[in-house]
Amino acid sequence: MFLKNKVQIAFIVLVIFSASCKAQTKGDTNAKKIKKQEHPSLILTKSGVESIKAQLGNVPLFDETLAKVKAEVDAEILAGIEVPIPKDFSGGYTHERHKKNFLILQKAGVLYQILDDELYANYVKDMLMAYAKLYPTLPVHPQTRSYARGKLFWQCLNDSNWLVYVAQAYDCVYNYLTEKERNHLEKNLFKPFADFISINNPQFFNRVHNHSTWGNVAVGMIALVMDDAKLLDRALHGLKTDNIDPDAKDNDGGFIKKPGQKVGFLANLEEPFSPDGYYTEGPYYQRYAMYPFLVFAEALQNVKPELKIFEYKDGVLLKSINTLLNLTDADGNFFPLNDGQKGMSYYSRELVSAVNIGYFFGGNNTNLLSIAKQQGEVQLDDSGLAVAIGVRNGLETPFVKKSINLSDGKNGDEGGVAILRFPGSKGELSLVMKYSAQGLSHGHYDKLSFSYYEGGCEVIQDYGMARFVNIQQKGGGNYLKENTTWAKQTITHNTIVQNETSHFNGDFETGSLHHSEIYLFDASNPKVQLISAKETNAYPGTEIHRTMALIKNDNFENSFLLDIVKVTSENENQYDLPYYYMGQLMSTNFDYETAESLKPLGNKNGYQHLWKEASGKTLTENAQVSWFNAQRFYTLTTITSKTDELIFARIGANDPNFNLRKEPSFIIRKPNSKDTYFVSLLESHGHYNPVDEIATNAFSSVKNLKVVYSDHLYMAIEIETKSNKNYLFLFSLNDQSKTSNHQIKIDDITYEWIGVYKLTEILKN
Amino acid sequence: MFLKNKVQIAFIVLVIFSASCKAQTKGDTNAKKIKKQEHPSLILTKSGVESIKAQLGNVPLFDETLAKVKAEVDAEILAGIEVPIPKDFSGGYTHERHKKNFLILQKAGVLYQILDDELYANYVKDMLMAYAKLYPTLPVHPQTRSYARGKLFWQCLNDSNWLVYVAQAYDCVYNYLTEKERNHLEKNLFKPFADFISINNPQFFNRVHNHSTWGNVAVGMIALVMDDAKLLDRALHGLKTDNIDPDAKDNDGGFIKKPGQKVGFLANLEEPFSPDGYYTEGPYYQRYAMYPFLVFAEALQNVKPELKIFEYKDGVLLKSINTLLNLTDADGNFFPLNDGQKGMSYYSRELVSAVNIGYFFGGNNTNLLSIAKQQGEVQLDDSGLAVAIGVRNGLETPFVKKSINLSDGKNGDEGGVAILRFPGSKGELSLVMKYSAQGLSHGHYDKLSFSYYEGGCEVIQDYGMARFVNIQQKGGGNYLKENTTWAKQTITHNTIVQNETSHFNGDFETGSLHHSEIYLFDASNPKVQLISAKETNAYPGTEIHRTMALIKNDNFENSFLLDIVKVTSENENQYDLPYYYMGQLMSTNFDYETAESLKPLGNKNGYQHLWKEASGKTLTENAQVSWFNAQRFYTLTTITSKTDELIFARIGANDPNFNLRKEPSFIIRKPNSKDTYFVSLLESHGHYNPVDEIATNAFSSVKNLKVVYSDHLYMAIEIETKSNKNYLFLFSLNDQSKTSNHQIKIDDITYEWIGVYKLTEILKN
Repeated sequence: MFLKNKVQIAFIVLVIFSASCKAQTKGDTNAKKIKKQEHPSLILTKSGVESIKAQLGNVPLFDETLAKVKAEVDAEILAGIEVPIPKDFSGGYTHERHKKNFLILQKAGVLYQILDDELYANYVKDMLMAYAKLYPTLPVHPQTRSYARGKLFWQCLNDSNWLVYVAQAYDCVYNYLTEKERNHLEKNLFKPFADFISINNPQFFNRVHNHSTWGNVAVGMIALVMDDAKLLDRALHGLKTDNIDPDAKDNDGGFIKKPGQKVGFLANLEEPFSPDGYYTEGPYYQRYAMYPFLVFAEALQNVKPELKIFEYKDGVLLKSINTLLNLTDADGNFFPLNDGQKGMSYYSRELVSAVNIGYFFGGNNTNLLSIAKQQGEVQLDDSGLAVAIGVRNGLETPFVKKSINLSDGKNGDEGGVAILRFPGSKGELSLVMKYSAQGLSHGHYDKLSFSYYEGGCEVIQDYGMARFVNIQQKGGGNYLKENTTWAKQTITHNTIVQNETSHFNGDFETGSLHHSEIYLFDASNPKVQLISAKETNAYPGTEIHRTMALIKNDNFENSFLLDIVKVTSENENQYDLPYYYMGQLMSTNFDYETAESLKPLGNKNGYQHLWKEASGKTLTENAQVSWFNAQRFYTLTTITSKTDELIFARIGANDPNFNLRKEPSFIIRKPNSKDTYFVSLLESHGHYNPVDEIATNAFSSVKNLKVVYSDHLYMAIEIETKSNKNYLFLFSLNDQSKTSNHQIKIDDITYEWIGVYKLTEILKN
Repeated sequence: MFLKNKVQIAFIVLVIFSASCKAQTKGDTNAKKIKKQEHPSLILTKSGVESIKAQLGNVPLFDETLAKVKAEVDAEILAGIEVPIPKDFSGGYTHERHKKNFLILQKAGVLYQILDDELYANYVKDMLMAYAKLYPTLPVHPQTRSYARGKLFWQCLNDSNWLVYVAQAYDCVYNYLTEKERNHLEKNLFKPFADFISINNPQFFNRVHNHSTWGNVAVGMIALVMDDAKLLDRALHGLKTDNIDPDAKDNDGGFIKKPGQKVGFLANLEEPFSPDGYYTEGPYYQRYAMYPFLVFAEALQNVKPELKIFEYKDGVLLKSINTLLNLTDADGNFFPLNDGQKGMSYYSRELVSAVNIGYFFGGNNTNLLSIAKQQGEVQLDDSGLAVAIGVRNGLETPFVKKSINLSDGKNGDEGGVAILRFPGSKGELSLVMKYSAQGLSHGHYDKLSFSYYEGGCEVIQDYGMARFVNIQQKGGGNYLKENTTWAKQTITHNTIVQNETSHFNGDFETGSLHHSEIYLFDASNPKVQLISAKETNAYPGTEIHRTMALIKNDNFENSFLLDIVKVTSENENQYDLPYYYMGQLMSTNFDYETAESLKPLGNKNGYQHLWKEASGKTLTENAQVSWFNAQRFYTLTTITSKTDELIFARIGANDPNFNLRKEPSFIIRKPNSKDTYFVSLLESHGHYNPVDEIATNAFSSVKNLKVVYSDHLYMAIEIETKSNKNYLFLFSLNDQSKTSNHQIKIDDITYEWIGVYKLTEILKN
């Protein structure tokens, strides 16, 4: 049996890495050498523990984390073991208690190894025994909301979280326990637990989704501890048969499984990650999935180094750490693309782990040390020790976030996300433009949407999710119905809405078939950075082409954002473009009427959640809106026609439980348009604080913004500044070549350029 | 002439300090000794400058401030002198330029003295000459909004600011100028300037108001430099005749002058300050007035020490510094009582000056050094040098803000403001209750109102003013009309509104006649702190008696606030009690209906600015509302009856220019009530942050709140906790004595206590 398993693993390795002779050979050799598995061997290793013990007291970051963890675990040991009968949703007592238990178990196991104090081993043993007593008595969880109910928790996802952590604890006390005790635990707790979240819940286990990643890793981690090759195979490759209905969906409306789709851990590594390390669900879930991905990779690397898991898919796991760190604002908060809770950041425990593992297994990149130093804690294992030593030795170098274009899709050909960054007078200006694929069940209908930051402040926000994660008062801490009716809808985002319907008519199946196409990403020019992409499927018969440029110009205090949306359609439609600005409205250059009583802006597709506060029109070429936020002024100048409606709206209508944030929006509406464009320029300028009460540069630097040329091939936009300078932004709409020659005539003057765009000053009399 | 002036001054001194023989004698002696006035002598003194020069390079805080000021002035000198023809409101170019000029002139004068570099003297001279050229040509300012238009600025107030600063600059370069130059400046600039803001504008100069304080001080400062006793007399005692119409009001609706009222600097020191150093307009304007008060006091102390100005009215000026520092939240922001802009704090330049002067002239209280250290800068004079030396020598002691009761009114018998403070698990809990007089033209109609803070965060907010000071887009940076229609109204504040009308029917004259009466202030008990006060004039025929207690109890995570409002009326009325909570509503224990379209809650008295978002009723004894803010949960439990309407409202209706902040309110409405009470308990509890996503203690600890006894003499409130403890709060409503015996019977049990209140645990089966 033992030999057979080993051969089987070697065979798996052969299949996976058939292109890599070296991997095969080494794996093969290892399989022969291994006799009896050491413990601990997953996250901590025997030799790692020796190194840690030798360094204790000399590595401040490690020592401090250890002291903190010890204090936390000691307090829990003092409080006593509680293993309640499962009852509550997340946020409720039994949920939070079991969650705390698995976190503490993992830590107690580590403390036993590092401090050699049997108090901790005994605590782990006692609690595991309590679980082994409880678990066989449990039916599925009484809360029925989940498509895959767990036993300890309301969903298998949380049961899997439990096992990922507890497997580590078991590994740490493995040799402390007698064989009899181990057999008891494995028979009554670990094996049935692993079977329940896999065999009994194929709709949860056999998918490509962060849920399944957790499930696969849970089974894989316990398989590694128990040295159970069959379970490990299940973890890596999924269940052989599952009988999943191809139309089945999960609670978020996502498909369980596409026909013929590969499953298991390796498939979950293969498919949702693009070659650039972007995870299709978005950074919030990428963060969530990073822990199982990386901790299992670490365990595999330690126990099965022959798998070379960190080299899999061209090293995508290590790449993804760098990608995720880049998907943050100046304060380290993740951009809340798709379903994302605002405020989640690289200070989370998952990112501490990711940065440590990335440093240790990824070639000791010293820029990761500067993030670790900010995090102020490390993982209590070999990787954390290495980081703590690096920080102690002052090896850190700055982690510089650059402008970056991240492809989406397994093969990197399903659109993507671009981030443009420019230093600014009050912190970095960062533009995030999303032209990705749907992003599975957590995806939003927001093709060509964007958000914009100055320093750590949102200037134009992405709303994120409508959920208060783990806050029980708000729908048990789960997704609120407003997540579907509001957060996912197109009008919620800063992009084009046609005829008050969402992209793909809000249909998940259709949305999942499509992605936007990149037209141009160019961050090579220190004065102009651009991202340009097209969307042709969101509204059949309509092409939306959005180009966003961050431009540095001496006539502006700060870099500004030029936003050009060209819409071409076969039919006449109404187009809305909302800007969810943050702050207090200061002034407009046009008249508007405020409503005497507020009514919703529409009755569906998210419009029912917007109060229409005011509406106006302008007879001039430009509408200008200024607002104030966080000691800063902002002005949006947009090219308007007389028929455009300019709407001020506020989130919060049809919100019976006060689940939404009552934040403002400025919406430009173009009725009855076939081909049209939205051209806007967004400045951040000036300063005011209430202590010195002096307002500086409180007004826009734009005198006029004008489209001076527009056809199906080209657009030209003239920017006139208050300092009486004139600039022309020339853009080729249908030729991506960097070497093509272009020529257009404006007011009898011929302009020529090479490549997609040109920004040039023009002299006027 | 010289001799005559001196005699006159000595005579003034005699009159003012007739009770102080010592002052008289010393003044008399000094008058004889002084021959020719030294320069500088106002803020800088000859000996002070010598000390400063001797210490340069050895006093970090002073040296850093000097370097910063030098860099700022050098940049301005490089940019060149600009003295534009006055045109704009505050926030506009000419306003901000002249404002910058006076600030820089003062600094350049100081730099000349300290650095002995004629570059600075010359710069001051050149700019003064430019003003002397411009000033005689100026008509009154073209903006007509002010009741007292200036020449350089739209109001005499700003002209006075200018002269207060520029007098200091003139003092610094006095000896650098030739006599001819001085005569030229005095004849063409300073004397006509001083006459214009006084003789030509008696309605501005001859009042008791912060405006007049600035005017008096401006005249007084230039009088001291020019050694002009007649002008100094005018500054100290006002104009002898003014012909002010007794019905005249200023732009804020305040009376110009009460018949027979004393005027001038000394009257402005006498009347608005209470003996506790509370300034009747509130802390925002106290801060504004502190600079002229203190800088003139410093100058008088230096030039006319015989006046003993710092001992005037029992040392009220020095007291007021301590008072003002106590009128701040945990972050040093002033409580925005009456018209106050939020965010103004003890980091303002006026408070740097105040703290320095307070330390130097007030006996070197080392707790002021800890504030100075936080401020990180000092005034560049003897007082700033003393502070910098103190900080360098590590002498600072903590400035501990205590619970404090501050009387209002010249004699301290016109109500007041109480601040209760308790340390909390997440920063100090501070309750501010206002039971003061009207507060002149900047007063709000908010008798017995309160605000509540945790750390630097507002839990229950005072809205403050409706104005964006110096932000031109918003009404020229001046008071907005919403300041009258919203910010001053009663419904805007957290206090009782009867029949949807404001206190005193919003009538300033009536409001100015009355104040609330204190009933009890007791901060002596480390477990219970109380403030209790009564208001009988806001609504004739109705008595409102509010008692607020901060209570520490082991069954609550944190101290909680008990709020008891007893209303007794001759008639049936509707009573509203709003709570302007900050944050996102989490949950309620009652059903409510949200509106399909939002309508204003009323049509006048501020109600027209509230959207009615939802309304409900409850059949249970208590209504409970929870919200979340800044990682913290809050729960308000309030005793309700079936007829009470529970309203959720939001600020922002009838706000055509988006001048208001769209913040929420929870309003308890009791219709058709004669005698009634509002009893509520406010907890702050638990924690949640989006990085760890764990909610702790997210629910209230209150099981039930109940009035178990109520008549015209006593109230008894029972608090039942979820931990099944019962507490009784017994309160005597009409006997302030600390030694009276009280006895009431509840459910056949007799309770006895001594003094106004008792909080006791009761045992129940």
